Amino acid sequence: MTLAITDRSRLRRLHERGHFDRPTIDSILDAQPQCCVGYVIDGRPYVTPTLQWREGDHVYWHGSSASRAIRASKGAEVCLTVSILDGFVMARSGMHHSVNARSVMLFGRAFVVPDDQKEARLSAFIDGLWPGRAAHLRPNQPQELKATTVLGMEITEGAAKIRTGGPQDDEEDYALPIWAGVIPVETRVGPLQPDPLNLPGVDAPAHLTDFRWKA
Amino acid sequence: MTLAITDRSRLRRLHERGHFDRPTIDSILDAQPQCCVGYVIDGRPYVTPTLQWREGDHVYWHGSSASRAIRASKGAEVCLTVSILDGFVMARSGMHHSVNARSVMLFGRAFVVPDDQKEARLSAFIDGLWPGRAAHLRPNQPQELKATTVLGMEITEGAAKIRTGGPQDDEEDYALPIWAGVIPVETRVGPLQPDPLNLPGVDAPAHLTDFRWKA
Repeated sequence: MTLAITDRSRLRRLHERGHFDRPTIDSILDAQPQCCVGYVIDGRPYVTPTLQWREGDHVYWHGSSASRAIRASKGAEVCLTVSILDGFVMARSGMHHSVNARSVMLFGRAFVVPDDQKEARLSAFIDGLWPGRAAHLRPNQPQELKATTVLGMEITEGAAKIRTGGPQDDEEDYALPIWAGVIPVETRVGPLQPDPLNLPGVDAPAHLTDFRWKA
Repeated sequence: MTLAITDRSRLRRLHERGHFDRPTIDSILDAQPQCCVGYVIDGRPYVTPTLQWREGDHVYWHGSSASRAIRASKGAEVCLTVSILDGFVMARSGMHHSVNARSVMLFGRAFVVPDDQKEARLSAFIDGLWPGRAAHLRPNQPQELKATTVLGMEITEGAAKIRTGGPQDDEEDYALPIWAGVIPVETRVGPLQPDPLNLPGVDAPAHLTDFRWKA
């Protein structure tokens, strides 16, 4: 499936880096929960970092029902952006320096997930990263769920942008004795750090010891 | 120096995680060039990933003069956000799961850097990451500079937000046999990948071999 290109999602420049097919868009959303959500208050922009997760044709994010980012986004136009830095591209001229990166911008109206579906969405968020963890935890309390708002947005409008590979220099610059190449950037998890207050004999479950996430 | 707390920058929740002193704000800006810039077109929010750099009391970012993000931001209210994920915080209940993270939101009006200062700003951007590299490169051409717009914003309004440490569970949950702790997340550079088209005998300069950036 491929998203229709709209005036909002069309790439003005370097359009060969744009991707509108869902497998590409989904792969970036699924690779990196970190995102920024943009919303407007009194005509001015706000960009709040949060975590997103995808279930099928929707992305979700959540927060305290009292938070400004949640209150200003519900029912409103938002832009949700995920961006993954994969490397610094070192060219022979300053202007051709670049970054290898994968990003997605999604546009749409955020809706409030109904109360009776909130817990299922939050469990899917946790289980999406650590399969089986939600059921492993102390159950949610009604007042905790009440204090939390889950927002969702249908994936209908947006674009992915990807740059990979080495520097693309001007033809004549390849004759210059300047080192060019790529400095790769990696985001990955390190060894588990147990809480000193863990009960004796409680080891990390497989959903944590098997966790090999990298963006 | 400390920024005044405004209605826009005040943390509504978990205000103990908020920081308004410039050394804290600057340290986050300086740690991670990756950022998201939010702007408004026809009342709707856009969040574009780009790179930022700081010089003294200003942050800067740049792009093609033809890009929508640049055209819509110049002279306009923007929100520039840097966010660094440091770890997943695994608690004994779903609701107390969190992330360790450092972020900065800056608010203000973006100005266009005058033509006669553009090259100095772009060189400062490159040299800020790789000291001495700008002078090492093929000089910028006038038409390249003309096609590039550098935007700046004074650091006058904004906030940093930092979470560190282990899970903070409800008192009674510490008796549960559930593993809790932190999964650290690291973003760092890997080994240099030379362009196959580098001239024979051209080795990477010290500003690259010494580069030890990690977010």
